[in-house]
Amino acid sequence: MKKVVAGMDIGGTNTRFGIVDREGKIYAEDSIHTDNYRDISSFIEHISGTIRKMLKNFEKEVSLRGIGIGAPNANYYSGSIEYAPNLNWKGVIPFADLLKKVFDIPVVLTNDANAAALGEMMYGGARSMRDFIVITLGTGLGSGIVVNGNVVYGHDGFAGELGHVTAVENGRLCGCGRKGCLETYVSATGIRRTVVELLARMNEESNLRKIPFEELSSKKISGAAEKGDRIALKAFEITGKILGKNLADTVALFSPESIFLLGGLASAGDLIFKPTSEYMEKNLFKVFRNKVKILPSGLTGANAAVLGAAGLIWKELID
Amino acid sequence: MKKVVAGMDIGGTNTRFGIVDREGKIYAEDSIHTDNYRDISSFIEHISGTIRKMLKNFEKEVSLRGIGIGAPNANYYSGSIEYAPNLNWKGVIPFADLLKKVFDIPVVLTNDANAAALGEMMYGGARSMRDFIVITLGTGLGSGIVVNGNVVYGHDGFAGELGHVTAVENGRLCGCGRKGCLETYVSATGIRRTVVELLARMNEESNLRKIPFEELSSKKISGAAEKGDRIALKAFEITGKILGKNLADTVALFSPESIFLLGGLASAGDLIFKPTSEYMEKNLFKVFRNKVKILPSGLTGANAAVLGAAGLIWKELID
Repeated sequence: MKKVVAGMDIGGTNTRFGIVDREGKIYAEDSIHTDNYRDISSFIEHISGTIRKMLKNFEKEVSLRGIGIGAPNANYYSGSIEYAPNLNWKGVIPFADLLKKVFDIPVVLTNDANAAALGEMMYGGARSMRDFIVITLGTGLGSGIVVNGNVVYGHDGFAGELGHVTAVENGRLCGCGRKGCLETYVSATGIRRTVVELLARMNEESNLRKIPFEELSSKKISGAAEKGDRIALKAFEITGKILGKNLADTVALFSPESIFLLGGLASAGDLIFKPTSEYMEKNLFKVFRNKVKILPSGLTGANAAVLGAAGLIWKELID
Repeated sequence: MKKVVAGMDIGGTNTRFGIVDREGKIYAEDSIHTDNYRDISSFIEHISGTIRKMLKNFEKEVSLRGIGIGAPNANYYSGSIEYAPNLNWKGVIPFADLLKKVFDIPVVLTNDANAAALGEMMYGGARSMRDFIVITLGTGLGSGIVVNGNVVYGHDGFAGELGHVTAVENGRLCGCGRKGCLETYVSATGIRRTVVELLARMNEESNLRKIPFEELSSKKISGAAEKGDRIALKAFEITGKILGKNLADTVALFSPESIFLLGGLASAGDLIFKPTSEYMEKNLFKVFRNKVKILPSGLTGANAAVLGAAGLIWKELID
């Protein structure tokens, strides 16, 4: 019998999950609309039923040993999802315990950036690394930090909030109530704010002037940049500069071997990787120069999040 | 036979060393002038001889199991002291190997802030903690960061350079060549720079106007502050504000249970602890508020550095 785990990535809109072995082979995969489930018990019931059906198709081949979950506002220590603003389920949801009651196997929960880091370590570009950082550039900026082969959870399970270090003194207002948080500059929504600032400040013609603020996606901005749009190019330069400078500080603390950039904004490729590397190097403390690689994810495709969650539970089972 | 280790703290001026058991009992202790030894072999010879003599006095009671060393520019992985600007021995000194040849027991080396963190964990105020940070406020600012019970060394052994994160954009020139490094503001030399800036900017009378720049020690500044000197008080307020803001960012990454402040500037007590706590709390990301304690060292007296170095090697022997 091949040992397998279930990996689950819970997002505000969709939840993807699958059955994965130690080598990253995916036996079955499915996704459901998270927001169709008003209460947590109907969600647990549905997802457990689907996992059972998936296993049934391989019942002579595989045995389920654990479940790993990447979710917003997830606490590794308690196994709970706590006050997630983008999910229907309010308050503290003891998610790991609810699934343990159904399957009676180890269930582990963490946020999506930590899960992505474990996916990178188990199946992706960090397979040989003990010290590295994964940064997810989506609506916000998430980070999963690995030190000596283990994710940094901190004493309360909430460590790794690189998106909420101060990038600019008295800077942009953040959804968290602070000012100048890194994610207000470096994220899909951050670069959008930078573009409209530039539209106000500069006089260059730009197709981006035709798009309303709310519809300015990082994809549209990178599309414009690829066609030579000066505003879009400048926005990427500024975004990479702020990220690079902050990464120089992050390197001074962790001295990672590599930093992986994932998510929508990272798919802009050189547009974001080049200025980020350049400004990081310029700002590094001497001893760290020319040592730290900034890399794209080694995991591609829609499976990445499921593999990350699977990596999370494999890591526990192996340890 | 009681198992003991030797703990050694190498500074530019003095080297202190002693024989220490697991419980922190010091059997013997001595110090020598580091700068009297022009070449490393005479230093190793002298220090080995003295350790042997110390052990001889307890030869029926104790057995030496390892040597831990805190030293400037020390690399944990290689066991070397590398290009230390304040020591006589130039280039890369394979310090651990040289001592291993003499004693044939485990020898471990790290920088003094990491050693201080291990001392705090083994014998001081962090005995029950798995996640905490030690900050040494001396001539510069050093940091020893503990995650999940282990010091963060990073992939190359040089992690934990909190003194060289950017505190002020385009700020003071640092000895390292960068601008605005935290230690140019928060350290004995940093607060001195702040005092003279204030002497230029403000008109208040102050006894500090009578002291030349080079003689302005943090002790003199705290002495003036205790007597109500407005310039000195303002300098502590600014120093604590900059430290507190930067600690808020550090907490976002590591989520430590406590942060310990050690060294000359920390002995100013409330003058530095109060503004540091206040501005850290004000700038913390919501989830970390009212959770992180800023504490003085639990180790007092001249033994602290020797106990730190002893803690370093005990940690290895226990693991």
